Amino acid sequence: MTQGPFASRLARMRQQAREYGADAVLVTPGPDLRYLVGYDALPLERLTCLVVPTEGDASLVVPRLELLAAQASPVAGLDLTLRPWGEGENPYALVTSLLEGCNRVALDNHMWFEKVVGFRDAAPHWSTILAGFILSSLRMRKDDDEIAALVNAGAAIDRVHARVPGLLRAGRTEREVGADIADAIIAEGHVAVDFIIVGSGPNGASPHHDVSDRVIVDGDVVVVDIGGTMPDGYRSDCTRTYAVGHAPADFVAEYAVLQEAQAAAVAHARVGVTCESVDSAARHVLAQAGLGELFIHRTGHGIGMETHEDPYIVAGNSLVLDEGMAFSIEPGFYREGRYGARIEDIVIAGRNGLIVCNTGTRDLVVTPAGGTGR
Amino acid sequence: MTQGPFASRLARMRQQAREYGADAVLVTPGPDLRYLVGYDALPLERLTCLVVPTEGDASLVVPRLELLAAQASPVAGLDLTLRPWGEGENPYALVTSLLEGCNRVALDNHMWFEKVVGFRDAAPHWSTILAGFILSSLRMRKDDDEIAALVNAGAAIDRVHARVPGLLRAGRTEREVGADIADAIIAEGHVAVDFIIVGSGPNGASPHHDVSDRVIVDGDVVVVDIGGTMPDGYRSDCTRTYAVGHAPADFVAEYAVLQEAQAAAVAHARVGVTCESVDSAARHVLAQAGLGELFIHRTGHGIGMETHEDPYIVAGNSLVLDEGMAFSIEPGFYREGRYGARIEDIVIAGRNGLIVCNTGTRDLVVTPAGGTGR
Repeated sequence: MTQGPFASRLARMRQQAREYGADAVLVTPGPDLRYLVGYDALPLERLTCLVVPTEGDASLVVPRLELLAAQASPVAGLDLTLRPWGEGENPYALVTSLLEGCNRVALDNHMWFEKVVGFRDAAPHWSTILAGFILSSLRMRKDDDEIAALVNAGAAIDRVHARVPGLLRAGRTEREVGADIADAIIAEGHVAVDFIIVGSGPNGASPHHDVSDRVIVDGDVVVVDIGGTMPDGYRSDCTRTYAVGHAPADFVAEYAVLQEAQAAAVAHARVGVTCESVDSAARHVLAQAGLGELFIHRTGHGIGMETHEDPYIVAGNSLVLDEGMAFSIEPGFYREGRYGARIEDIVIAGRNGLIVCNTGTRDLVVTPAGGTGR
Repeated sequence: MTQGPFASRLARMRQQAREYGADAVLVTPGPDLRYLVGYDALPLERLTCLVVPTEGDASLVVPRLELLAAQASPVAGLDLTLRPWGEGENPYALVTSLLEGCNRVALDNHMWFEKVVGFRDAAPHWSTILAGFILSSLRMRKDDDEIAALVNAGAAIDRVHARVPGLLRAGRTEREVGADIADAIIAEGHVAVDFIIVGSGPNGASPHHDVSDRVIVDGDVVVVDIGGTMPDGYRSDCTRTYAVGHAPADFVAEYAVLQEAQAAAVAHARVGVTCESVDSAARHVLAQAGLGELFIHRTGHGIGMETHEDPYIVAGNSLVLDEGMAFSIEPGFYREGRYGARIEDIVIAGRNGLIVCNTGTRDLVVTPAGGTGR
């Protein structure tokens, strides 16, 4: 990515900050910082902080130790003063000194409480607000490079799912399968494994189960929900449901409903409809089939440099989908003690229609019992 | 690990909280939560929070979606009420209702600002303080199982370093070498790669450089500082310095001083001495040789379920080392534009002397230029 997007993102953040009545925005290491200035800083006990007064010059306060790392990032090409601080200095007082006259200061949503306390002590007169309101409208709307990055991440995790039928065999534990999936996530181009859910049999009924020592047996339904971070910071996230050897007959019928529900939400989602209407499109199909009570979570979450970010596809969210909004569509159903099922694709509201980032089959893939492939 | 340590940790935390005058401690997902109750919860936008009033019953507030995951953790065996909340409920109000009469409430140091704001809105009368003061004295003192875990993590990262001479060849980029190291970190038993620094030539002069597209050339000094997370949550962290083909003659002499400085700090560190005296033991040797100005960081940091935690081995820290305290000893020197060097071991103040978790050679390892092995 060029340095181009960062200057424009900072300018738009300033504009948003003015609309929210903030005098300044402070951003510590994390996805917000990487999005705004391209600096993938370590989250350390030592304060690194982007300081952007609504009026006036922006600075990046960095520990002296991190100065070279910061200079090696796109930060160096931006209209931003680097303010290194050494051991023994108080970086919170330094930030405060850069914000004379500021009273209403926005802090990034993931700022650690210890940093918040640092600012509370250094500037007790500040009224602090969440920067999320200012930043989310920017981060939600992906530009063309970001859309390409998410499509690329989707293709990478699809290649991992293509390997899963060869890994899911009766007699293996979820943990063993998960370890192979972790290797595949890295082998297929991610730089980090973010999460691996291998929910076999009754474990599939816990939407956020990870892996366990449960041995997979013939007839198990297995929910596999996996994702990682690509070198450019964008995330993948895709769920498919498998059956080992064979699937219970009642499950097969329910799965067909789920597939229909997921497809209905995908067909509905586009620029101009509300987030809650996408949720309702999926929920309606499941409810009609008597599975509504088993769909115990929202339909989706935004994705980008974080796996969960705005917009959330949930009842009560009347946000209207705009160009570039990227999110998951992942209805599921969960029968406690028996199994779960979920189908998840990442989609993007594009100017010419919906872009679907995951393209692997949504049919129930039944692997040979004890076998090694599709 | 059995459920044994968790009940005792909660009891000791309560005791510490009383001494700090806190009415309650709130802990969100992260190392503090895993340390206290063994639950490796996902850090999500939805609130998961351990609620421990100094007097009264402890609870774990969890999103309903996470209930099965929480029940599958050691939490189930603890004297702790699980309080699930559903979409549409306000979990902050739920926490507040569990803490009637509490005014001074400690929040974990890494709690996200958005959670802090949730509590600020739900309980504006609270005076909030950092839980780090309460927790660090517990987490700093590793028990025998934790010591074994850190020794095990040290052995795993040592095996990775043993592979590094085979990976560092003139003509490869730092990024290529780093990708191979990432694979090796997982292959040697970690579940996550935490950081990889391959600082070749001038890049080694940035202590927190990660990797770049710089092509390694014959005669490069290369700082390799790597670490990961083991399945039990404990971290590894070890630095060795290599030279490709040959090392500059002036560097070899300086490196010998560094090796002496690192050994002096290791020889000095033990139960009963202060953190700052360990720092000074290393610094003194470098300063005597005229390299003091080039040693631009503290000597070390604590390690456990986080890579950086208390105790910090730094001037001004008069904390006296106690049994079970685990930390790095990692002096270095940095010549901007030319190279850097650092030697890092994780050590633990044991009741029978210092336990050194990293045992690979601290000599400068010179790899054959363009070769493939030691």
